Amino acid sequence: MNAAEAGKVYLVGAGPGDPDLLTLKAARLLAEAGVVLHDDLVSQPILNLIGKQALVISVGKRCGRKKITQAAIHDLMIVSARKGQAVVRLKSGDPMIFGRAAEEIDALREAGVPFEVVPGVTAASAAAAYLETSLTDRRVSSRLIVLSGHHAARTEPQPELWPGALPSDATLAIYMPGHDLAQVAVSLANNGMPGSMPCVAVTGASRPDAAYTASRLSELASLHHSSAPTLLLVGRVLEALIGQRAGEPFQLSIDEPATITTDAN
Amino acid sequence: MNAAEAGKVYLVGAGPGDPDLLTLKAARLLAEAGVVLHDDLVSQPILNLIGKQALVISVGKRCGRKKITQAAIHDLMIVSARKGQAVVRLKSGDPMIFGRAAEEIDALREAGVPFEVVPGVTAASAAAAYLETSLTDRRVSSRLIVLSGHHAARTEPQPELWPGALPSDATLAIYMPGHDLAQVAVSLANNGMPGSMPCVAVTGASRPDAAYTASRLSELASLHHSSAPTLLLVGRVLEALIGQRAGEPFQLSIDEPATITTDAN
Repeated sequence: MNAAEAGKVYLVGAGPGDPDLLTLKAARLLAEAGVVLHDDLVSQPILNLIGKQALVISVGKRCGRKKITQAAIHDLMIVSARKGQAVVRLKSGDPMIFGRAAEEIDALREAGVPFEVVPGVTAASAAAAYLETSLTDRRVSSRLIVLSGHHAARTEPQPELWPGALPSDATLAIYMPGHDLAQVAVSLANNGMPGSMPCVAVTGASRPDAAYTASRLSELASLHHSSAPTLLLVGRVLEALIGQRAGEPFQLSIDEPATITTDAN
Repeated sequence: MNAAEAGKVYLVGAGPGDPDLLTLKAARLLAEAGVVLHDDLVSQPILNLIGKQALVISVGKRCGRKKITQAAIHDLMIVSARKGQAVVRLKSGDPMIFGRAAEEIDALREAGVPFEVVPGVTAASAAAAYLETSLTDRRVSSRLIVLSGHHAARTEPQPELWPGALPSDATLAIYMPGHDLAQVAVSLANNGMPGSMPCVAVTGASRPDAAYTASRLSELASLHHSSAPTLLLVGRVLEALIGQRAGEPFQLSIDEPATITTDAN
């Protein structure tokens, strides 16, 4: 258990939101760091664990509105490390699964700044724990496919989530599926997913406001909600959850304006 | 931060092996539990964190040689909880990704024993951190496919890892690929993976004895090694690792007997 090293950047996974699901290493680095650069999605209870000595900067990009450019994030990391600070770059979930760590690693390598990646609990694992449902129940599913729906909701023409047919014995974990699940439903139907396939939209797994709604793929298009789900799970392993609903952030309403609120993510 | 509850079973992810990558919750539960039932793959430094009051039972199944039946594991959990113990069922990585948690959850539900799943850092995240390589570098790969090679290595005829063609922009994480990577190579070639596709076999990511070997798919068949890798990663995101090798557990030798040693896992 080494202390945070001066002049080094730590790309740290903050996990799904419950501070109790930080790794021991992440918690120690947060307590000791001189500079913390964090995404918007990192929860307040986790930010509360940052030591009082630290300079804390939110570098999140909410809903595509860039508060700060990626180049500026690179500069902040590199300059802070060169000044001898122990720098934590804090990302929701795991940095290496849809955490956009690759460009930051390239920038650190190019600058010759020492760095280390500290893995975290990814959103799919937290959702599975919350739903008490294995993603790879070997009696039903032997494959897990992790996708990002982030772009699908905002570009035209809509890129496909998956090329060709999806195996029916796979579980899908779609990160940041966006607020318009109808688009996702069309995409999955085009991949040959049957209308009976169970789908579960989850927000805030591991957090006090965690909630989910389960439906079949054929009904997914009519499922509107006020806050965009963190994760959409799709697959036969979710069959037992159909017809169930926990928490209140989802409303079934056709006319609701499609406002994006990512605060609950 | 609640204490471990009496009469409850906690299905806990131990993460990849480094005790520093336990979650805060997992570490506290291990310190407080009355009974700990753990898999073989859980590392000794993690077992050292179990409180002295605990009854510790290894319920691992090594290389298919069953030391204890699944039904006996269920009985141990249920009986211990009913006696008022806080029971930790400790699994390597994350319980819900190839952790075989589904049957145990079913047994606990059927018995009416309260339980909770505590997610952990899965092997793919730990390997990516160790290799300093994002699994979903958005410039190269937008999809992560998580598979288990466990059965592929031991049954005849060999079940396919994947039905049909694999998308070329996906990263594959094959858990427990077995000692015979030639079989995996044939399987992936049948899925249309080009011979130039980078493959990285990893053992013990996050542990002091962590090591990897990188090769192209066309050379994977000739890559023999004395200890079975924990994980085989395949995909264009790994291109920069080709020709590199860290650590010493892998040997390139055609005639080496194919002994299975999972201790390094």
